[in-house]
Amino acid sequence: MPTKNRPLILITNDDSHAAKGLKTLIEAAAEYGDILVMAPEHNSSGLSHSFTTGRPLRVREINKTEGIEIYACDGTPVDCVKLAIEHFCPRRPDLVLSGINHGSNSSVNVLYSGTMGAVIEASTYDYNAIGFSLLNHNPDADFRACIPFVKQIITDVLRHGLPTNVSLNVNFPNLPAGQIKGIRVCHEAKARWADSFEKRIDPYGRPYWWLTGRFICNDYNPGTDEGALADGYVSIVPIQPDYTCYSAIEPLAQRFEKLNG
Amino acid sequence: MPTKNRPLILITNDDSHAAKGLKTLIEAAAEYGDILVMAPEHNSSGLSHSFTTGRPLRVREINKTEGIEIYACDGTPVDCVKLAIEHFCPRRPDLVLSGINHGSNSSVNVLYSGTMGAVIEASTYDYNAIGFSLLNHNPDADFRACIPFVKQIITDVLRHGLPTNVSLNVNFPNLPAGQIKGIRVCHEAKARWADSFEKRIDPYGRPYWWLTGRFICNDYNPGTDEGALADGYVSIVPIQPDYTCYSAIEPLAQRFEKLNG
Repeated sequence: MPTKNRPLILITNDDSHAAKGLKTLIEAAAEYGDILVMAPEHNSSGLSHSFTTGRPLRVREINKTEGIEIYACDGTPVDCVKLAIEHFCPRRPDLVLSGINHGSNSSVNVLYSGTMGAVIEASTYDYNAIGFSLLNHNPDADFRACIPFVKQIITDVLRHGLPTNVSLNVNFPNLPAGQIKGIRVCHEAKARWADSFEKRIDPYGRPYWWLTGRFICNDYNPGTDEGALADGYVSIVPIQPDYTCYSAIEPLAQRFEKLNG
Repeated sequence: MPTKNRPLILITNDDSHAAKGLKTLIEAAAEYGDILVMAPEHNSSGLSHSFTTGRPLRVREINKTEGIEIYACDGTPVDCVKLAIEHFCPRRPDLVLSGINHGSNSSVNVLYSGTMGAVIEASTYDYNAIGFSLLNHNPDADFRACIPFVKQIITDVLRHGLPTNVSLNVNFPNLPAGQIKGIRVCHEAKARWADSFEKRIDPYGRPYWWLTGRFICNDYNPGTDEGALADGYVSIVPIQPDYTCYSAIEPLAQRFEKLNG
């Protein structure tokens, strides 16, 4: 069991408990506190903020040693966070981490990301939460250049916390250590995915569609995460679990509040 | 096939093609344009902004008559929107609708909602998109009081459009027609879910966890969607596909941009 006088750090991801990025994050975080990992049993990329209904969840113990407990859960990343917080953490976690994801979660990708779904879920409980992602999808990606930044960001957030309900979306450019220029705190670039599916015909003459997709972004100014990453910086976007477009409330009130069904 | 001179309205939901709320929405929208429905084959509540990877999608034709085509897809609500726009719509849709959902998508529920995942996906393509939800989970819920509002909102958005990348999250109080007081355009209330899972023991002595959950909200002021609904109003929240907390960028830049890995 974790000891009571060290920070408790809850870790999850969406690439599964077996991912190299998760192991890298556990190793980097272990010097700062006791670690409890609740990660998906299977790859859960693209599961966004979804949760499991209609069937119960199972949990499998993978490791239980002094200061590091690791569990696999057959639910989504959001399920992992909820279940760990309510039924596995021996005390309130001081920090929730997710990743390091194999692949980008910058810009509009945050909408689809299971890694960031877990982070946003934690932020609704007002836990300090950080998602880390490397712009390299390879299962054997080299995370070494990320580690010093991960450690500095963990240290800062454990010491100073984050604003209420605000979490961090941290993305690393796919560069060797010496070539990363620093950190930029920025906003999400405007982008979208296109050409999402490829149509094929099965041997019986029936159509089916495979997910493909092409990332379309024309928003590379230095204030955006895509701009920061293209310039060789680590991007940090502060995010909040609120989709409201505040600037549209007043003009739309003029239009809609006069309607009466 | 739809005719070329009428608006094209794409409709989806997360309760499946067989849901009463979807049928209600199709009937309400049919007088304003040609209808193309691409709805999930199965109940997809709680699937948020997730999409399907690892297997291809299939589509089943359910109805194809003058002005109304209905298809079921074995993917998520987001898959339905992408696939319909790219492979089934004969022209660019003038409007994308989702719902009418059986149950609330107000406040933090928008994060988990498949209904709203579809709407937010459409907004990343800059389509005019609206999600409708009734605060009643019953499969046989009475949607009659919603219909005049649905028609007025569709009429207004077809005529005047919406701001770039802004969509609408419309929730109806569970009241008979005469008791709904009007419309309020508002922001998401701050809330969260707690007590998410109930632990049980199977006949072999092993634990499992069922999703339960309790909605916790203390933010019922009149400017919030929860406040509007509690007061008997239809709530409309303008939403945008951007999680950035802009007010946190500057203070966090002071902290993090001095770190250098």
